[in-house]
Amino acid sequence: MDPSKVKIPVLKDLTIDNITENVHRINSTCADPRLKYILEQLVTHIHDFARETRLSTNEWMAGIEFLTAVGKICTDVRQEFILLSDILGLSLLVDSIDHPKPPQSTEGTVLGPFHTHDAEHLALGTNISHDPNGTPCLVVCNVRDTDGKPVEGVKIDIWETDSKGFYDVQYSDYGKPDGRVVMKSDAEGVFWFKAIVPVPYPIPHDGPVGKLLMQLGRHCWRPSHMHFMFEKGGYDHLITALYLRGDPYETSDAVFGVKDTLVVDLGTVDAEMAKKYGVKEGDKLLSYDFVLVSDEQSRKLREENAMKAMEKLGRRMKLYNGLPVPDVD
Amino acid sequence: MDPSKVKIPVLKDLTIDNITENVHRINSTCADPRLKYILEQLVTHIHDFARETRLSTNEWMAGIEFLTAVGKICTDVRQEFILLSDILGLSLLVDSIDHPKPPQSTEGTVLGPFHTHDAEHLALGTNISHDPNGTPCLVVCNVRDTDGKPVEGVKIDIWETDSKGFYDVQYSDYGKPDGRVVMKSDAEGVFWFKAIVPVPYPIPHDGPVGKLLMQLGRHCWRPSHMHFMFEKGGYDHLITALYLRGDPYETSDAVFGVKDTLVVDLGTVDAEMAKKYGVKEGDKLLSYDFVLVSDEQSRKLREENAMKAMEKLGRRMKLYNGLPVPDVD
Repeated sequence: MDPSKVKIPVLKDLTIDNITENVHRINSTCADPRLKYILEQLVTHIHDFARETRLSTNEWMAGIEFLTAVGKICTDVRQEFILLSDILGLSLLVDSIDHPKPPQSTEGTVLGPFHTHDAEHLALGTNISHDPNGTPCLVVCNVRDTDGKPVEGVKIDIWETDSKGFYDVQYSDYGKPDGRVVMKSDAEGVFWFKAIVPVPYPIPHDGPVGKLLMQLGRHCWRPSHMHFMFEKGGYDHLITALYLRGDPYETSDAVFGVKDTLVVDLGTVDAEMAKKYGVKEGDKLLSYDFVLVSDEQSRKLREENAMKAMEKLGRRMKLYNGLPVPDVD
Repeated sequence: MDPSKVKIPVLKDLTIDNITENVHRINSTCADPRLKYILEQLVTHIHDFARETRLSTNEWMAGIEFLTAVGKICTDVRQEFILLSDILGLSLLVDSIDHPKPPQSTEGTVLGPFHTHDAEHLALGTNISHDPNGTPCLVVCNVRDTDGKPVEGVKIDIWETDSKGFYDVQYSDYGKPDGRVVMKSDAEGVFWFKAIVPVPYPIPHDGPVGKLLMQLGRHCWRPSHMHFMFEKGGYDHLITALYLRGDPYETSDAVFGVKDTLVVDLGTVDAEMAKKYGVKEGDKLLSYDFVLVSDEQSRKLREENAMKAMEKLGRRMKLYNGLPVPDVD
């Protein structure tokens, strides 16, 4: 960081009104146009936030202490900043922007902080939950493209809590993965497994995010759901979840994950299915037709949406690696 | 967090366009009107930031990882979130909002991350720096009110780096405070001490904030300065610093601390002063007349500024503990 090699425009005498343009000036030599644009927007919004709230030094310090506590509680298996993003609706928003869905395709939702990379890759039909207190639930789903054709060989991550509402990694004596699996759809696009009926659960609320929810008069519950993540070359990465209709938290999910199209009714396993899938007649049944979007469809829609949004803001922009930056040429 | 005791308005089906109002709805039962307003503005600005940048999932995740790293590097003697706030110009802005200064009073500036609470309380005239390589500098200042009357008994915190540009707490073998002191102004409002001529120094740049500066093409230097903090009942808390004119970083301070009125020229100790203060003739001399604002003046100005700003935004607001909240009565 030899200062003689850095050319910084001269700053002006700083005031409440000109500090923002001065920060833009000092950041204006950034070589990456996307980082420069992101910082410009970030600084503008943070400053406007402070000006529009007349943020006090005490409030600012409370914010500094809050963010520090959020950072301090993060571990390899707990991401409190993602949780914070979730309860502010930011995670849902970013997913919606980045993974736009044409009509009839499956909507995405929040990833949440409990996806891990150590789930076992197992065959179709496996039992993913070893909780003896869970209510058995047969899950039979299929994956299609927007033309209705089955998609074979999609890598599908599935994860759910146990019957107490805890993920495997939340136990201090966590040994090996449970309630999660990675499997692949078959030639008919079908994937199925044995699981337990999802239950509502509180997001981790013993940390700073939980305290914030309390102060806001909010609860920390998520409605019953099961997570699904779909990956296959040529298709847009789909992170989603299915929610059980009638759950007490269906309309007040602490992390804004519920979308109408992702709410399902559980069915019942009949005699024929029981025989076919090796489960008991009368067991609960979860079925869903997932529809994947191609990378190309997704990219096109994302870029169209981006340029439309920029036009609406009256900003002259161009795409840079598929993301908007000022068009200064 | 018994859900039956929490009344949350029903959320609507979530989209890019309505997620913000939905987050406002879920936060709308917050009992503290100020917290509610702050969260509303925060959520609005964070969401607008994501919509206006079309923030991608990868960029969001980079942000999550950045904030986590910022939190992780914080210790009792290193506050990387304050540093982040500093290099984004937020610290300077918040200080300017919270401590407005009428003309002729001394302007405030950034606290920075190196103020500590363990400085020794010593008599006027003490030598605060024990660095044998520093250039001696006599500091003789006085404190007055806006009517020009001396203010006696003001508690003054002073801190500066050693000649290498490091604060005491930055050394791994940090034992006891050096380069810092707390003293009180005398009956004439005078305070004086022996120090060393401040030098430019880099802000800590081995952490995530330093990396961000690099990516932005910015340097990490602060121009030569000495910190001063003034406290006395009835007067607005003043956090400020004096900067040496002609410093190579005078116009590009990494943390936006320099204000024209705080830039000073060093003088030279003459024979009479040398005798009076027990220093060498020809030593460097730093003099400044600090002017404190009363609590009452400051409060009035802050509240006037706040209401003017709210009016300009077209928001119908009232003051709540001196800070604006929506006037919904």
